[in-house]
Amino acid sequence: MKFKQHKTNISELNIFGINPVKEAILTNKATHIYISKNFTQNNRVLSLLKTAQNKKIPTTIIEHNNFQKQFGTKSGQNIVATISLTFLKSIDDLIINNNENSKVLIVDKVQDPRNLGALIRSAESAGFEAIILSSNNAAKINSTVVESSSGAISHIPIIDDQNINQIIKKLKDNNYWVIGLDMDGDKEYEDYDFYGNIALVIGSEGSGISKLTKSLCDQIYKISMKGKTESLNVSVAAGIMMFKISNS
Amino acid sequence: MKFKQHKTNISELNIFGINPVKEAILTNKATHIYISKNFTQNNRVLSLLKTAQNKKIPTTIIEHNNFQKQFGTKSGQNIVATISLTFLKSIDDLIINNNENSKVLIVDKVQDPRNLGALIRSAESAGFEAIILSSNNAAKINSTVVESSSGAISHIPIIDDQNINQIIKKLKDNNYWVIGLDMDGDKEYEDYDFYGNIALVIGSEGSGISKLTKSLCDQIYKISMKGKTESLNVSVAAGIMMFKISNS
Repeated sequence: MKFKQHKTNISELNIFGINPVKEAILTNKATHIYISKNFTQNNRVLSLLKTAQNKKIPTTIIEHNNFQKQFGTKSGQNIVATISLTFLKSIDDLIINNNENSKVLIVDKVQDPRNLGALIRSAESAGFEAIILSSNNAAKINSTVVESSSGAISHIPIIDDQNINQIIKKLKDNNYWVIGLDMDGDKEYEDYDFYGNIALVIGSEGSGISKLTKSLCDQIYKISMKGKTESLNVSVAAGIMMFKISNS
Repeated sequence: MKFKQHKTNISELNIFGINPVKEAILTNKATHIYISKNFTQNNRVLSLLKTAQNKKIPTTIIEHNNFQKQFGTKSGQNIVATISLTFLKSIDDLIINNNENSKVLIVDKVQDPRNLGALIRSAESAGFEAIILSSNNAAKINSTVVESSSGAISHIPIIDDQNINQIIKKLKDNNYWVIGLDMDGDKEYEDYDFYGNIALVIGSEGSGISKLTKSLCDQIYKISMKGKTESLNVSVAAGIMMFKISNS
């Protein structure tokens, strides 16, 4: 499984705060750094600036009141990096050959940007190759998503604004097993037993996977609750399933 | 393993929004409901009010401007439940006999209340019996924690503000294995092989488990990262480990 990286859109986003900015610089995703003049005496900032200089990333120091005007409510963080993310234009850019051990995550309508960020972080950590986001009524990539992903979003391509059901049909035509994770799945996740190319589908916080999408899955797994709580946080549940798939 | 439920503190907290309030009513944790007059035409609210009435939970309808004064920034949610949580006073209330299959979660300095809420939700869902929180520099139980726990906090006792290291020594004296989860653990979580009473220790978002606490663990496990991201979200990592323990 290889990516044709040339068929991509590059999008830009601002991220705030010293740790996310540091991550962006170290992973070569930062295209520009902005700093409030108030913050330039800080030792960690000075060390970061030096790293940015070595990597030839343009840096602009701004008077604090102008910094506030430019970056608004998040300007308290005093440091901003503009980063670029990799978006694949379509699923065709992902599927070149499918005879290997590819794992992709399909996110059907997750609404909370912090959950989406944690999902991206877990997917990249579990060795997944791409993330596919639905077009319907779902969280979009914004700076909260980027920050919650803790840098992971810079390392995994995203295909967003997709018709999930068409994507699933295409993946099935290209030799992927499509696995759902849902509260009313009919097999326990511990009994997961698929091999090869896998697309894992997860649903929204409130209502799980859409009915039609569920009907397209080859198998739906559940994580049985052992207490009185109805369900897990979606990013926790998906993390459990992704690492189960990844370690199988 | 049984709890002496008489040695508890009961604390009260306000929670906001129709879903958390509904959960609090259905699980008999709500001791009082407050509603903005603006919200009393909503069908879901009317149905909730009826349920509260049947359960003899006192309900107060308040003019919206007074509601705003009383509940401040979260008053946009228009509905509030006061709930009671179960706090155990000490670890002695948990350990009566220790010859069964007890699981407890020890949280060493997690700082984000949403992470703490998700941890509580996962622990209760994985069949853990209690949660022990450290006294040092950690998130305290507040309404964000309650909401992020999605009702789970009403079903699991909490022992808070503890000296974690003293607690661990006491648990060891009482036949618990103490297991850590940390990025620099020396065994892969998939190879987990303990049985009996288990105390799982997890550390803070930034720096993991404290050094002294680590030295008290019988074994430290890690979840190996397969991408370029340094670590998982703490509540995702802990969820993976808790379900591993729970299903072993």
